[in-house]
Amino acid sequence: MLARLTSLTVRVTALAGGVGGAKLVVGLQRVVGEHTTAIVNTGDDSVIYGVHVCPDVDIVTYWCAGIADTQRGWGLAGDTFHFVEALRALGRDAWFSLGDRDLATCTYRTQRLAEGAGLALVTDEIRRALGVAAGILPMSEQPVATRITTTDGDDLAFQEYFVKQRCEPEVAEIRSEGIESAAPAPGVLAAIEAADVVLICPSNPLLSIAPILGLDGVRDALRAHRQVIAVSPIVQGKALKGPADRLLNRLGHGSSASGVARLYADVCDVFVVDERDPDEAGKVAELEIEPLLADTIMSDGAASERLAKVVLGV
Amino acid sequence: MLARLTSLTVRVTALAGGVGGAKLVVGLQRVVGEHTTAIVNTGDDSVIYGVHVCPDVDIVTYWCAGIADTQRGWGLAGDTFHFVEALRALGRDAWFSLGDRDLATCTYRTQRLAEGAGLALVTDEIRRALGVAAGILPMSEQPVATRITTTDGDDLAFQEYFVKQRCEPEVAEIRSEGIESAAPAPGVLAAIEAADVVLICPSNPLLSIAPILGLDGVRDALRAHRQVIAVSPIVQGKALKGPADRLLNRLGHGSSASGVARLYADVCDVFVVDERDPDEAGKVAELEIEPLLADTIMSDGAASERLAKVVLGV
Repeated sequence: MLARLTSLTVRVTALAGGVGGAKLVVGLQRVVGEHTTAIVNTGDDSVIYGVHVCPDVDIVTYWCAGIADTQRGWGLAGDTFHFVEALRALGRDAWFSLGDRDLATCTYRTQRLAEGAGLALVTDEIRRALGVAAGILPMSEQPVATRITTTDGDDLAFQEYFVKQRCEPEVAEIRSEGIESAAPAPGVLAAIEAADVVLICPSNPLLSIAPILGLDGVRDALRAHRQVIAVSPIVQGKALKGPADRLLNRLGHGSSASGVARLYADVCDVFVVDERDPDEAGKVAELEIEPLLADTIMSDGAASERLAKVVLGV
Repeated sequence: MLARLTSLTVRVTALAGGVGGAKLVVGLQRVVGEHTTAIVNTGDDSVIYGVHVCPDVDIVTYWCAGIADTQRGWGLAGDTFHFVEALRALGRDAWFSLGDRDLATCTYRTQRLAEGAGLALVTDEIRRALGVAAGILPMSEQPVATRITTTDGDDLAFQEYFVKQRCEPEVAEIRSEGIESAAPAPGVLAAIEAADVVLICPSNPLLSIAPILGLDGVRDALRAHRQVIAVSPIVQGKALKGPADRLLNRLGHGSSASGVARLYADVCDVFVVDERDPDEAGKVAELEIEPLLADTIMSDGAASERLAKVVLGV
């Protein structure tokens, strides 16, 4: 049984990817404020229009700042797209829609990196400038590039697969280029070790969480941790957003809570199954992981907060 | 006496800088259309926010496309500044205001240069995409950086002097860094040689025209040309825009039509003096340059066209 945490100053470190991760980090931030640290996937980072785009890091940052475009799931609420529209008018195939203000975040990052600042510092500067209480860490400061091999034999950069081709190609393999030589960013292992609870957010297990777990030392740090809780990104066989369900089926894991739990079996103490999937709880228990039933659908900030409280037992 | 040109297919090549140059090129384009070629100063080019900014080239292009912000004198009409505003909100000292759509032009240029295209080709691609009939050539494809030494001993990049410090420092010297090793861009000397008339626009003689004239072979090509006509940027002792009057006085040339004519005496056959300065015509004649009195104030496109017709004698 999950130890009930009695203090609201519990330190929580969350492994996160895109929107699913961002929503739970928002909930954690509402419950434990600056005692939240998010370690965010950078496998989908890319240089686009000459700027360093960190989609997952920025999604988490914008959601925590309360300025995200929550309808679209990425970018900034009320942002304009005059830059990319003008680029298209000049004849460029500007398939990556980056808002004008969102571009400023990426340009800020690019300039600071060029000035010699590390990605962890730059990420921290941005979240502070945007008034985010939670700490946000990129998983690594070295390039890790998620690449997709399709069943047609194409080798696609992640954003080509995800944005340009709208996740339509059938995926044969997902690779993390550079993962062997990439180190966890400064603060990542310390944030795991110092945390009272480590959460694996309901992010894409194969695209968002796997790269973080693949970094040298992260899996070991989670195994050594006394309280690692994962939240299923699959509800009733479906991903709420993105291609996780198709990818889990396609790559033989099964699109179910227990299919995801199996991927985390060596690191996970508790696995949160959506209350709509009571049968999955038993399958998770068979993996010797403690199941916890909860409403995992975070339709707004209050729902994110409720889930965070259930998960933390406060 | 200026030979009266009888055909509207006369080929005109214009040496131009910022707004004064752009206005006359607009007039030429209205009179001789695609038979206009502008050779534009690149001494104020700069890499800002990681993109290759060509202020004078873009001013001429935007004016000729009819999309310039004619009130401000630079940038695009109706452009937004969400990018630079967001950059400032992140804590950057973003003193160079670049509109969101204007940034797209610069990003397009930066990406094409990175792909290996030359600046002349890229400039041509942009003007074609924007529907400009006139040919537009950067003066050089190699970097030439106008630098300002102030009387306080500071050495300023041009945009620092011009934009950040609003031309406020007293100027001791203007230098063109890199001018010795820079070549005229492909097409520049040919455009001068092929032209029936070469015009030196009413641009800043020291900041915009001097760098073009300083390129290897340009001054010789003008001396060899049978019909070089310059238009005074000074009317009643004042520049219509920018610091030309102060600089001409400060550096000992005198802020007058004849002061400018003296700078062009070796290349210039005809010098257009504003009709408000009849006394200057005599002083120009003393330099053995034929003076031509005209209304040089181009308050709108029709006025630009009128001046172009007077200058071309059509």
